[in-house]
Amino acid sequence: MASESGKLWGGRFVGAVDPIMEKFNSSIAYDRHLWEVDVQGSKAYSRGLEKAGLLTKAEMDQILHGLDKVAEEWAQGTFKLSPNDEDIHTANERRLKELIGETAGKLHTGRSRNDQVVTDLRLWMRQNCSKLSALLWELIRTMVDRAEAERDVLFPGYTHLQRAQPIRWSHWILSHAVALTRDSERLLEVQKRVNVLPLGSGAIAGNPLGVDRELLQAELNFGAITLNSMDATSERDFVAEFLFWASLCMTHLSRMAEDLILYGTKEFSFVQLSDAYSTGSSLMPQKKNPDSLELIRSKAGRVFGREDKEAVFEVSDTMSAVLQVATGVISTLQIHRENMARALSPDMLATDLAYYLVRKGMPFRQAHEASGKAVFMAETKGVALNQLSLKELQTISPLFSDDVSHVWDYGHSVEQYAALGGTARASVDWQIGQVRALLRAQQA
Amino acid sequence: MASESGKLWGGRFVGAVDPIMEKFNSSIAYDRHLWEVDVQGSKAYSRGLEKAGLLTKAEMDQILHGLDKVAEEWAQGTFKLSPNDEDIHTANERRLKELIGETAGKLHTGRSRNDQVVTDLRLWMRQNCSKLSALLWELIRTMVDRAEAERDVLFPGYTHLQRAQPIRWSHWILSHAVALTRDSERLLEVQKRVNVLPLGSGAIAGNPLGVDRELLQAELNFGAITLNSMDATSERDFVAEFLFWASLCMTHLSRMAEDLILYGTKEFSFVQLSDAYSTGSSLMPQKKNPDSLELIRSKAGRVFGREDKEAVFEVSDTMSAVLQVATGVISTLQIHRENMARALSPDMLATDLAYYLVRKGMPFRQAHEASGKAVFMAETKGVALNQLSLKELQTISPLFSDDVSHVWDYGHSVEQYAALGGTARASVDWQIGQVRALLRAQQA
Amino acid sequence: MASESGKLWGGRFVGAVDPIMEKFNSSIAYDRHLWEVDVQGSKAYSRGLEKAGLLTKAEMDQILHGLDKVAEEWAQGTFKLSPNDEDIHTANERRLKELIGETAGKLHTGRSRNDQVVTDLRLWMRQNCSKLSALLWELIRTMVDRAEAERDVLFPGYTHLQRAQPIRWSHWILSHAVALTRDSERLLEVQKRVNVLPLGSGAIAGNPLGVDRELLQAELNFGAITLNSMDATSERDFVAEFLFWASLCMTHLSRMAEDLILYGTKEFSFVQLSDAYSTGSSLMPQKKNPDSLELIRSKAGRVFGREDKEAVFEVSDTMSAVLQVATGVISTLQIHRENMARALSPDMLATDLAYYLVRKGMPFRQAHEASGKAVFMAETKGVALNQLSLKELQTISPLFSDDVSHVWDYGHSVEQYAALGGTARASVDWQIGQVRALLRAQQA
Amino acid sequence: MASESGKLWGGRFVGAVDPIMEKFNSSIAYDRHLWEVDVQGSKAYSRGLEKAGLLTKAEMDQILHGLDKVAEEWAQGTFKLSPNDEDIHTANERRLKELIGETAGKLHTGRSRNDQVVTDLRLWMRQNCSKLSALLWELIRTMVDRAEAERDVLFPGYTHLQRAQPIRWSHWILSHAVALTRDSERLLEVQKRVNVLPLGSGAIAGNPLGVDRELLQAELNFGAITLNSMDATSERDFVAEFLFWASLCMTHLSRMAEDLILYGTKEFSFVQLSDAYSTGSSLMPQKKNPDSLELIRSKAGRVFGREDKEAVFEVSDTMSAVLQVATGVISTLQIHRENMARALSPDMLATDLAYYLVRKGMPFRQAHEASGKAVFMAETKGVALNQLSLKELQTISPLFSDDVSHVWDYGHSVEQYAALGGTARASVDWQIGQVRALLRAQQA
Repeated sequence: MASESGKLWGGRFVGAVDPIMEKFNSSIAYDRHLWEVDVQGSKAYSRGLEKAGLLTKAEMDQILHGLDKVAEEWAQGTFKLSPNDEDIHTANERRLKELIGETAGKLHTGRSRNDQVVTDLRLWMRQNCSKLSALLWELIRTMVDRAEAERDVLFPGYTHLQRAQPIRWSHWILSHAVALTRDSERLLEVQKRVNVLPLGSGAIAGNPLGVDRELLQAELNFGAITLNSMDATSERDFVAEFLFWASLCMTHLSRMAEDLILYGTKEFSFVQLSDAYSTGSSLMPQKKNPDSLELIRSKAGRVFGREDKEAVFEVSDTMSAVLQVATGVISTLQIHRENMARALSPDMLATDLAYYLVRKGMPFRQAHEASGKAVFMAETKGVALNQLSLKELQTISPLFSDDVSHVWDYGHSVEQYAALGGTARASVDWQIGQVRALLRAQQA
Repeated sequence: MASESGKLWGGRFVGAVDPIMEKFNSSIAYDRHLWEVDVQGSKAYSRGLEKAGLLTKAEMDQILHGLDKVAEEWAQGTFKLSPNDEDIHTANERRLKELIGETAGKLHTGRSRNDQVVTDLRLWMRQNCSKLSALLWELIRTMVDRAEAERDVLFPGYTHLQRAQPIRWSHWILSHAVALTRDSERLLEVQKRVNVLPLGSGAIAGNPLGVDRELLQAELNFGAITLNSMDATSERDFVAEFLFWASLCMTHLSRMAEDLILYGTKEFSFVQLSDAYSTGSSLMPQKKNPDSLELIRSKAGRVFGREDKEAVFEVSDTMSAVLQVATGVISTLQIHRENMARALSPDMLATDLAYYLVRKGMPFRQAHEASGKAVFMAETKGVALNQLSLKELQTISPLFSDDVSHVWDYGHSVEQYAALGGTARASVDWQIGQVRALLRAQQA
Repeated sequence: MASESGKLWGGRFVGAVDPIMEKFNSSIAYDRHLWEVDVQGSKAYSRGLEKAGLLTKAEMDQILHGLDKVAEEWAQGTFKLSPNDEDIHTANERRLKELIGETAGKLHTGRSRNDQVVTDLRLWMRQNCSKLSALLWELIRTMVDRAEAERDVLFPGYTHLQRAQPIRWSHWILSHAVALTRDSERLLEVQKRVNVLPLGSGAIAGNPLGVDRELLQAELNFGAITLNSMDATSERDFVAEFLFWASLCMTHLSRMAEDLILYGTKEFSFVQLSDAYSTGSSLMPQKKNPDSLELIRSKAGRVFGREDKEAVFEVSDTMSAVLQVATGVISTLQIHRENMARALSPDMLATDLAYYLVRKGMPFRQAHEASGKAVFMAETKGVALNQLSLKELQTISPLFSDDVSHVWDYGHSVEQYAALGGTARASVDWQIGQVRALLRAQQA
Repeated sequence: MASESGKLWGGRFVGAVDPIMEKFNSSIAYDRHLWEVDVQGSKAYSRGLEKAGLLTKAEMDQILHGLDKVAEEWAQGTFKLSPNDEDIHTANERRLKELIGETAGKLHTGRSRNDQVVTDLRLWMRQNCSKLSALLWELIRTMVDRAEAERDVLFPGYTHLQRAQPIRWSHWILSHAVALTRDSERLLEVQKRVNVLPLGSGAIAGNPLGVDRELLQAELNFGAITLNSMDATSERDFVAEFLFWASLCMTHLSRMAEDLILYGTKEFSFVQLSDAYSTGSSLMPQKKNPDSLELIRSKAGRVFGREDKEAVFEVSDTMSAVLQVATGVISTLQIHRENMARALSPDMLATDLAYYLVRKGMPFRQAHEASGKAVFMAETKGVALNQLSLKELQTISPLFSDDVSHVWDYGHSVEQYAALGGTARASVDWQIGQVRALLRAQQA
């Protein structure tokens, strides 16, 4: 009989339950993460019951004391699950009853399981979002520090994996750091919507016993109270938002990892991963694989398309590990400045060559074509773009004169990009300042 | 020529560019939506070029005038696409050159296609998010009005599709309206991140020609300026955010539609859809199908998992139609109060029966079991729960006495749920007030 | 030093590894499922090495014996994982070395980890697909048996959740059983592509040591050999196919569950779930929730969009549980014949009424309209469709005569649908025969 | 009328059917693709009606003739859609009625819209799957031809983007061709399940008018008949299967494209894309972007997660274009043999160095470690692995002797991998033969 085995719904049931079905229905394997917040929520609720006159002061104290004991057992690893504990809520209440007797049966008065589950989940996520925020800030800070320290290193910027224009290495770092500041901003918004009290919503109709929800809010330090009891117990927007946040953040980390994997190939040789973030091959003795970066990239796939409570726990762990590994990778990465410099080639200044003509008055579309002709001429002659003689250039346009030689200076090239957000040193400094200010503002 | 330069292993194609490849690469079929914002962006950019000394005042005026002419042709439907117009940006610049000659070639100075595409997209989305906001508010307002007018109608609240507790019909409406207020709040956050100027970022390195991005921001009325030029031209977080917003909003509308489909079945008969939102069957003459609701539900699937620019246009259209149809459905829906009342049955008051015992001092877990026994007894005897005699109830618990008869009143039952968010009339009024206040705040 | 802690890639590494990174990279938590097939694969491979002259007969025997010992430890639950066992392959080889010494180091000759991982995964999936096939057949068989036994029960067929036409209850069961036969067919195709030997592919270039892959195929009883070593070690099509299979099968089970949830509501009352597949509510004593069906439905979401090896284990377990629970549900479900009969209403015969006119020579489009008029007339008069008098019908069409009364017989109605696949008894019998024949063919 | 019958709470809309709802419900924009198969299906069905005695021979001829006329109008582009044509089926029947009068109204006798839609879709997909099969075969054939012609070109095989082992260029081509043969096999299986006749299933109950489904099957040349009428009209497994097929095939093409993008970078310089499959930059004159490859890669994302009929048309077009572009790319690609050769470096033979020791009797695990030490020694000394002196090697293991010099030959290295599926010439020839045999078998 179900009622004997301690199932919560007691009296009505007759007949056994298919054991596969029971296992299928059990969530204790993952919702044990919630032990601490479950106790926290129950303590607040018992205070609500006392104020409403449904518990005496003595009963409340008994319950509070019992719940502390339950928490202590979890904290010390001595809590023993019984086979009938289908979820953390059942487990904790079962144990409470063992510890304090029948009074435990009053704790659930007017509270539904849905009520309790969603309160616990919000409490847990609030805590974890704070931790993830801190890890994310740490990563951004590491990146900005590195960007500041290595502002003078130039290397090729790529589009479509083709060398495009010379940029600062810091400009690349900041392009990823800036993306992460958006994640950080979004996480704060998610937290705001996580931080809303559902407790006191009952199953669907609300709480009929005069429990003061503002007291519950104060006890549990929530920022607001849910407006509608049906919505409160069933909505999981905040879970979907968190998972979306994680997937977008992982997309950013994944793109950064993808770049670094490429920059670390023999063919690019711009960066070298610390041994602490590499692994070898069981077959090929010379291999040193960028496993940390590949894991970051592959974890992105894991984060997408999950929709349930179980996902929250797993995704939260993944994000925590990924953010720490990314911070480790960035802070230990070695860069090869000389290879970076060597990879800059004169054809990457073809845009500057066009701008040279623009500055002499040629419309850009024509200048673009003229510069394209110079590229083609150099390719045909088998020389570098800066090795075309002035005479040769003048066959393309009479606007070319001696001062064209100034174009072939990579340092000079990047310094032109001084508009806000560009790769000139002043602009990079501005970016660093902006990101630091953002971090300060978000932490406040 | 490809055929000369090395088609090595046969195949279908001879000539300059594979025409399938060209078609494949073309986006004009959907990005023509952008014609207006493309002109708007180009006008602002030409002002930036003039201030930077790259256009004379006269050249700028010529370009501005030409762009106005281009816009006029689009508005009047006289713009003629040429087969080489692979996207809206090429088309507009090609036409501008036809209208004003070589000066048109100066417009793209220092601007990249990426720069231009993302600026246009942000302008377009900013506009559309505002429209969608307004439609969403209209829907919420319609729902709240209806909730207010029909506060006194009771019907069964369901969980797991099983009758659970009596609630107000307005409580159900508000549970969906409240969910939509979160969508509305999120849309404002998306808009904030859409409303950031990328123009002036060039391809990746930034703008080297002294274009003043703060002038561009002011011209185009953006709320902020992107921080890093590489990030600015490649990031599409705001697209992902918009699509996620749409998918979550559609999930809410889809759930509401699902409930209404069910409530409209012969078996439930709680509501009846207006003919304007129903269709018939080509085979079965008696059928009247809730197609509007089914389309809302099925469109939810269409919104998920899209990731590209094309998706933005389609999803935006879908959301616009869905919000309007939903508003129409809600405002024309008829409800069958008598069927709603008939569907309330005494077993739905089993929770209240337990609370009756709780109020007499029994711990809730025991009261839950006692009430469960009463349900079982009634089922066994084949009578309704409220037809058990006091004597019979007293065999379950001696705490039952005459006043148990007060439990069997549905109106009294819902009035108990007076905690914030519950289904009591006062609480429903509070919800209506809260949602109205939210709407006012968001519109401000 | 990494080489001390027993990492497989040995000599080259200097420096510690970030412990978060190590944990991140570890797969032992889920790939321990593979212990048995890992031993099986290694035994076959050591036979291949012996034939290639890379192991002496004595060495091979030593390895085979050691591997049997490893397997025994797993089977008896005495295998002890060490903290450095990052995956099952490392764990088993580490243990083998402890048991038989340095000879263990010869086992991996010419084999890469990728080689080994994918071989193990294919062996495991082959085994599991067979188990799932058997469970699926059991479910289909249960459904067909039930369909046969209850052929004479009529109830409403629904489209758009609106009552459409009278059908046999068996016709509904078979509509779901037939869908499952396609899953069963697809699973056999997946198994065919799972059952291909990759072992002997090395890392990417193949095996250079003369290992005979046909011997390995025979040892491990694979149906074919992979064609290209690069493809062999990296492709996971068979995983994607399996997950797609599972998601489609779950979609079918989910739809069946959705129907049954509806049919089990108070409002429909067609079926009643066994207590073994229901659960109660912690708050509402009268509730009996169809949790088994809801879990089946919700698990569908869990199956979608997973892409990794870990997913295979989880999805495989889910499918196994779901198929067994579904079989249990179907075999214990009670049906309420009288409610089913009562739910048939004359308007569901409106199509038959149109066919009546068609048989008298009226084009279907006109007959559809005429029947629609009759439905409208009945609604307006507030009577059932079959209560319209002949006179009234004749105002719609003079083709109506006395024999129209034969239309109002539900049994007669379903018997008309005798074309292959229809709901007439003969056709239902044909379907039962066809599904049974399919099952026999697939099991052969 | 909605406005009379109860638009209760205001709103925008007055009249019969909300026009947004109508547009929302319309599918003619994309299902016009079906015009030809819709006519084909209707012709077959009218033959079925004639045989069942529901049409006279003369009526049938009139209908057949009218349908031919409809088809002619579509083929010649003269068919005029009317605003009420919500889908292709309505459009064709409306036009038929205009052409032949009331007899047209008999065509739909006993047929439902669902019946018709799914029959049309199956006919259309059958046709298109055949076309895609042919395009896929053409691509595979092009790849195999190229693999055969360039068997003697060696280049680095990569894992984790790190140089791993020397392989044949053909081995790389074949690794992708082999993946495509699985797609080709799967497409045949999809076609088998597409090629099943649903017509004659009515709405849900079947066909009550004696229409002979075997005649319909013969007329439309279907391979089988659906078993259950409810399942037949609602199931879309074949659509899901087709979309899954497309997504897996696109994944393969996407991976190939990703490799080629990398091999085409300045840093790798192994291949050069034909101009016919490249595009330039609007800003940077020197750029030549691999747009064909990037589009192939990006289209992969478009194919995932679509679920509806509309998706079938779009995905089918995408696949057709992608397969042709891929064929074009492969057949015109130039390879740089000298760069490929230059990219082979002695450390890629570290595995061979370990095998050298294995052949001298050292267990592989020790040999792997010894070879790793050699790599480390070479790195430390700043020399290539093959420049370590014999003496130096002997400090690592006394098993090294003069013949170690044979290890440093890339041609010799690849020839070792002679097991089935490896990169040795004989094995590559075997692969070419196997893929050709598969193609022949599939085409049969």
